[in-house]
Amino acid sequence: MAWNGKDGETEHALERGFTIEVDGHAVPGVYWQPKQGTGDYLVLLGHGGGTHKKVGYLLAMVELLAQRGIAALSIDGPGHGERVQQSRSQKISDFAQVWHQAGGTEAVINDWKAALDFVEAEQGARGTAWWGLSMGTMMGLPVTASDERIKLALFGLMGEWGPNQEDLVRLAPAVTCPVRFLVQWDDEVVPREACLALFNRLGSKTKTLHANPGRHAAVPRFEMAASIAYLHERLDKYPPGSA
Amino acid sequence: MAWNGKDGETEHALERGFTIEVDGHAVPGVYWQPKQGTGDYLVLLGHGGGTHKKVGYLLAMVELLAQRGIAALSIDGPGHGERVQQSRSQKISDFAQVWHQAGGTEAVINDWKAALDFVEAEQGARGTAWWGLSMGTMMGLPVTASDERIKLALFGLMGEWGPNQEDLVRLAPAVTCPVRFLVQWDDEVVPREACLALFNRLGSKTKTLHANPGRHAAVPRFEMAASIAYLHERLDKYPPGSA
Repeated sequence: MAWNGKDGETEHALERGFTIEVDGHAVPGVYWQPKQGTGDYLVLLGHGGGTHKKVGYLLAMVELLAQRGIAALSIDGPGHGERVQQSRSQKISDFAQVWHQAGGTEAVINDWKAALDFVEAEQGARGTAWWGLSMGTMMGLPVTASDERIKLALFGLMGEWGPNQEDLVRLAPAVTCPVRFLVQWDDEVVPREACLALFNRLGSKTKTLHANPGRHAAVPRFEMAASIAYLHERLDKYPPGSA
Repeated sequence: MAWNGKDGETEHALERGFTIEVDGHAVPGVYWQPKQGTGDYLVLLGHGGGTHKKVGYLLAMVELLAQRGIAALSIDGPGHGERVQQSRSQKISDFAQVWHQAGGTEAVINDWKAALDFVEAEQGARGTAWWGLSMGTMMGLPVTASDERIKLALFGLMGEWGPNQEDLVRLAPAVTCPVRFLVQWDDEVVPREACLALFNRLGSKTKTLHANPGRHAAVPRFEMAASIAYLHERLDKYPPGSA
């Protein structure tokens, strides 16, 4: 339950690794503190399937956040990154097995809660948002539905689909914070209709769907950048000290 | 074919009325020049059904545009505003009749082309965009498909539906400029599926759908404001003198 010394830095943020114990398993994570600004807000970054807590596009989001003075937190999801099981194949057919072997949605919720507990204890509580696409929404929707500390969310590239489809369907109405939801119109992984259905089911009164042409992993760069601006704009409604 | 002396002003723009003759009928319009800034760009504002060229929400867009130094142009659509026929009912059932009696889609294209010709002759050619929802898209999609001077468009609240459904379906693939397309998820006038289908059919490589909960006329204020920011950002790629 501590910083693990795996420190580093990006152009705009200082990076500190940590490892926490959750229900008997180790969860490795990273916390990024902006070099400029005060880190008055925190964004939880959920990575996509087959990637990890420091995958390139998450680091790009860390930079965009840090430039706005916003801190970030990421952990490896079940069976991903430093939690990959020996000889695990990356095949999509194994994805459900990996998800459920690690304890499924309930374990994911506990992992993230513990990570946020740790960072808040060390660095203070702040207005907090979720950002995660694809598996980042498989994790983030249940976490957001279960943790009142998360005030808004960027979801997307996920639908009523996949290993925890039943959990997503069950928990979507319990998400009531503002949400922006990204859809790739020609998504070859998660069917468009399944994505629209999940957006439809979210309990949030304020929710906006943004759809662009292209395949699953081809979210336009302007949409990625705009997603961070969206979080920042809404987090500004939670001034420091109000968390 | 001239300014008609119906001049006025808003907080941020000077307003000049004009009337042009198109194929034997009179088309009344308004041109707004920002008080500040140079009017380096022009936005064509298409009003919704049952309203007119100076309806309140268009005037709100005029203000947002003028604050950014962008000029605007609006005309009354067929059977609307000063073109209302005596004793015409406002019933939705008459809408198709009104549209077709005035010459239908083809006449709408000609009206707008003539209006833009007039304003360009008087005020100079500039980077130009379309903004129009509902009937503003019934007019704007065919106009944008037919007039190369229009470099990008804000459409929405319309689908493969209504009096000129066949024209919209036929012309949507000919729209190739960047488009933002607004959908109201609970639209009680134009079915959601019809809206998604029209978005799908647009020929534009760069197009983004924004969907929000709520009924036809309940587009969130933040989405209206963001639509003007979108046009401005994209028009900045057409520097003055390049039109």
